[in-house]
Amino acid sequence: MNYVIIGLGTAGVYATRYISSIDRNADITIIEKNRYESYSPCGIPFIIEKGESLELLKHPFPRTKRINVLINHEVIEIDNKERKIIVKNLQNGEKLEIFYDKLLFSAGAEPLIPRIKNANEYLGNGVFVIKRLEDAENLIEYIRGKSIKHVSVIGAGPIGLEMAYSMKSFGLNVSVFEMLPQVFPRSLDPDMAFEVEKFLTGNGIKIYLSSPVEEIVVDGEKVVGIKSNNNFYSSEAVILSAGFRPNTELLKNMVDMERSFIIVDDHMRSSDPNIYAAGDNIIVKNMISGEKTVFQIATVAAKQGMVAGINMAGKEAIYTGTTLTFVSKIGSLEIASTGLTETEASKKYRVFSARARGLNRPKYTGGTEILLKLICDENGKILGAQGMGELSSQKINVISMAIRKNSTVMDILANEMGYCPEVSELYDITNMAADLLIKKLNISKYIF
Amino acid sequence: MNYVIIGLGTAGVYATRYISSIDRNADITIIEKNRYESYSPCGIPFIIEKGESLELLKHPFPRTKRINVLINHEVIEIDNKERKIIVKNLQNGEKLEIFYDKLLFSAGAEPLIPRIKNANEYLGNGVFVIKRLEDAENLIEYIRGKSIKHVSVIGAGPIGLEMAYSMKSFGLNVSVFEMLPQVFPRSLDPDMAFEVEKFLTGNGIKIYLSSPVEEIVVDGEKVVGIKSNNNFYSSEAVILSAGFRPNTELLKNMVDMERSFIIVDDHMRSSDPNIYAAGDNIIVKNMISGEKTVFQIATVAAKQGMVAGINMAGKEAIYTGTTLTFVSKIGSLEIASTGLTETEASKKYRVFSARARGLNRPKYTGGTEILLKLICDENGKILGAQGMGELSSQKINVISMAIRKNSTVMDILANEMGYCPEVSELYDITNMAADLLIKKLNISKYIF
Repeated sequence: MNYVIIGLGTAGVYATRYISSIDRNADITIIEKNRYESYSPCGIPFIIEKGESLELLKHPFPRTKRINVLINHEVIEIDNKERKIIVKNLQNGEKLEIFYDKLLFSAGAEPLIPRIKNANEYLGNGVFVIKRLEDAENLIEYIRGKSIKHVSVIGAGPIGLEMAYSMKSFGLNVSVFEMLPQVFPRSLDPDMAFEVEKFLTGNGIKIYLSSPVEEIVVDGEKVVGIKSNNNFYSSEAVILSAGFRPNTELLKNMVDMERSFIIVDDHMRSSDPNIYAAGDNIIVKNMISGEKTVFQIATVAAKQGMVAGINMAGKEAIYTGTTLTFVSKIGSLEIASTGLTETEASKKYRVFSARARGLNRPKYTGGTEILLKLICDENGKILGAQGMGELSSQKINVISMAIRKNSTVMDILANEMGYCPEVSELYDITNMAADLLIKKLNISKYIF
Repeated sequence: MNYVIIGLGTAGVYATRYISSIDRNADITIIEKNRYESYSPCGIPFIIEKGESLELLKHPFPRTKRINVLINHEVIEIDNKERKIIVKNLQNGEKLEIFYDKLLFSAGAEPLIPRIKNANEYLGNGVFVIKRLEDAENLIEYIRGKSIKHVSVIGAGPIGLEMAYSMKSFGLNVSVFEMLPQVFPRSLDPDMAFEVEKFLTGNGIKIYLSSPVEEIVVDGEKVVGIKSNNNFYSSEAVILSAGFRPNTELLKNMVDMERSFIIVDDHMRSSDPNIYAAGDNIIVKNMISGEKTVFQIATVAAKQGMVAGINMAGKEAIYTGTTLTFVSKIGSLEIASTGLTETEASKKYRVFSARARGLNRPKYTGGTEILLKLICDENGKILGAQGMGELSSQKINVISMAIRKNSTVMDILANEMGYCPEVSELYDITNMAADLLIKKLNISKYIF
């Protein structure tokens, strides 16, 4: 059987692993546009912050006799009648035809260039995106070469805020502009977002909320500032982190899409039975609400890649949806969430929430503050959680499992979280938040 | 309503919290034999290791008008016909009668003094147990005062091994004697225990397995060594960590017991309907096998205390059993487990297991090795897990929740573990172990 994988991102890597472990006769061809194989884009802000080599983010993909990896190659056409793709070697311009039985489209997404005056025009010349390793190299070179003093970040999601902190630790003046009235608008409620905002401003980063950027101001050939809410802010470099648009032009008019994202069934199959899709370019199911959503996160791409790979190789796998588990780290601040925010959940459920503030370990073993918000419906069913502080993402992982298993706040209160003073508190923050939340509900019987 | 709580350990503290939050008219009297209120016994080895003050382990209990805490008082009789207890003030010898409507017996357990020649005779004078703060003070004073060079630990469970490391960091020669052929016989399988043993011996601690101690050798008034397997080992101090026996003499012939542990129903009620029991002195249900077990761990005592308190105060709570979640830290090595060991599970189930070795974070953010063993039955139902390395206890917490919710290895593979290079790996060790384990099963359909 001939398999073609378009894109060696997370989804492509995991699909390939499963295809080759299930179908011993699989011949797999992987097409990757980059000049290198798979890499860890999520690591870029931290590598920049620490001044480490970007080479550390590369993962050479194990080649075998039956796995052919074509890097620096671009797919220029997909012919789903003939089941072939046409590929261009970006080094020498040569074209290749490759036939497939099953195709995985995991070409990912590209940074979205917002409709801001001069954003597109000055891309790479004062305006930067963060996705590929070259993007990071270009940004660093520009900042060093031009002795930049101020940098602005457009968009207060994880990449934007991680990059803001990273730039701050370079000694630059950093401002973040966010259209919406809070940071992390996707993953946190306003009350939790406010805690992150305090941390950022406490670290000298300026945060402008409800501040859409109208223009990147240029003076001759150089970026000199930002215009937002009719104010001018000096800035010799701008980082765009306004989201990602799916890389799906090649499948246009061939498979069903929604807002350019590929629609897949629970086998990760598109409307063309021989074309599967996984990763940042598809619409997925939100496991809690059952609604369609876009959630461009590596862990989710990995699961989808596995599902696609298993089905492509002839076994059966079902994708039941994402719990929307998320974690970011900004300087010393760990931030994590899973499930629905209270804001989002309130649109559909009668929602109860509680917030616990405690320690991740006892003070005498160096414990630090941890904050956990827990959200449930009127029956106590867990809908989501948000955490902040060291180990908060580990607590969120437990809640992610709880959500997956339709758990209630009672399960969170009852769950045994291992205790040893060197690593944890006796009364874990998840138990504590559940305790507070359960008191707001009418529980007739506690099941421990 | 008059409530009496005997013992202000973890179970007593949590029961009191729930009673007073549910029954606004509760009059609660707590009797505590110690000269101080609640404290953290689990912290003792770490406080000793770091040379910190034992005072840090004390938690003053919040007194209110309706909560009367009698420290330095001992219960000398329980009269369950009259529903009263007789209490002796240990400072002045005065006796008090206190009537109760509901009694919680949470007097905990005492270190077991094994039948070893001279163990009892030299207790406090070269032979030590670790339970109360005075025990730690006595040990430290003895070691400092007598310029001790060698110390032996009897028993390779968590307290024994944590104390062994703690003594080693004092610069002493430390030997551990364990009757059974492995360390952590309760919580780890031999393969995992061997990893801990390697760590300990690598840190200069001598481990003698399958080595019951026959005699503590004394020379005149002084402890001078240990006799085990007919060999003599020099040792001027001995720490006993051979388990705990329940403090239940007062209830003898009054309530049903098994091997001196109180038998309770799922409401934490003993065979006397007005006497509840919780904590280290009861027999509990193992949630996985349904069998009766003894599991003397603070987190479990906390849940049991809550259940007892809720039921005593007139609401209903059911205790469904313990997942046996456990964590210890020996120097830099974190060790955790939940559920059944493979050894234990094999007695009842057809067992499959897999062991994954990976990183807790990428190398470029300082990741270190983490090891996870996952155990399931032939249908993939998770029976237990064991972990080692930084963050392993956090992974075990996720598996504890999974076990609670009757999860399969598929749930562990599918669960979204948040990824950010500064705090975690993309392919979490739980996912990785599940992936290895699932390949050993005959799975017809993967549900992600």
